[in-house]
Amino acid sequence: MEKTDFFMLEAIRLSLTKMKEGYGGPFGAVIVYQGEIIARGFNRVLETNDPTTHAEVDAIRKASEAMGCSELTECELYTSCEPCPMCLGAIYWAKLKKVYYGNTHQDAAAIGFDDAFIYKEIERPLSQRHIPMLQLLPEEAKVAFEEWQKQENKTNC
Amino acid sequence: MEKTDFFMLEAIRLSLTKMKEGYGGPFGAVIVYQGEIIARGFNRVLETNDPTTHAEVDAIRKASEAMGCSELTECELYTSCEPCPMCLGAIYWAKLKKVYYGNTHQDAAAIGFDDAFIYKEIERPLSQRHIPMLQLLPEEAKVAFEEWQKQENKTNC
Repeated sequence: MEKTDFFMLEAIRLSLTKMKEGYGGPFGAVIVYQGEIIARGFNRVLETNDPTTHAEVDAIRKASEAMGCSELTECELYTSCEPCPMCLGAIYWAKLKKVYYGNTHQDAAAIGFDDAFIYKEIERPLSQRHIPMLQLLPEEAKVAFEEWQKQENKTNC
Repeated sequence: MEKTDFFMLEAIRLSLTKMKEGYGGPFGAVIVYQGEIIARGFNRVLETNDPTTHAEVDAIRKASEAMGCSELTECELYTSCEPCPMCLGAIYWAKLKKVYYGNTHQDAAAIGFDDAFIYKEIERPLSQRHIPMLQLLPEEAKVAFEEWQKQENKTNC
């Protein structure tokens, strides 16, 4: 068996077993570093009530803890479904090397997980989004940005 | 003072003080329900090594815990900066009612937080993204989706 298939099958196993155990939706993920699984994630939204505990986010949190670093540049993610925009954002912030996925986001939409709606919202100007987004107090807000620019040692690993 | 300004000033205060205390970048957020702050979030990436602990995600996690529900339909988010794609995804999954922001994402890019890059990546087909995304074992992956469709009681609140 290809090693890539082995890792994907583990992500798929998590998607099925953790759903059956009641943790959340049917999504699993693993993160691999140097040929070894360093983190196993799964959707835990029903368990935690936290809407951000998707499988990929759960796996990234555990992997960054295991690696002691917020950047996972040498790691690969195997996820049982194509990432939603939130998880895709997390993947980019974590700077993962490569992503393998099983189901597509169209498959997810077909069973009620409609991230296609979110992808469409992202493309819209702020003024036309379903969730209104309004700017307030930009002059006051920018002070923290100016302070950040004065700081040194901004990286942690 | 307008109540909206009051809440935004609290988000801005968090963005500045928590950055100075070393938790992470200059970003703060609060979530308001029925005129009261129910959650305070801030960027904690340097503290936790977790790249997903942006201010908005941190606030959403705390608010969903406080409300005992993954959907925050009657809540408003005040964030010191326009959300990145990850946080925007989280906002949609949490079904927040309204978002107020201070700095823009262009302001964030100007001090080194380049989520504009991620917005551009989202628009690209999977085959053209900087992080390669490859499909594996879709037949095996779909089994969990089929099982999900057979389940009842899929909501938690």
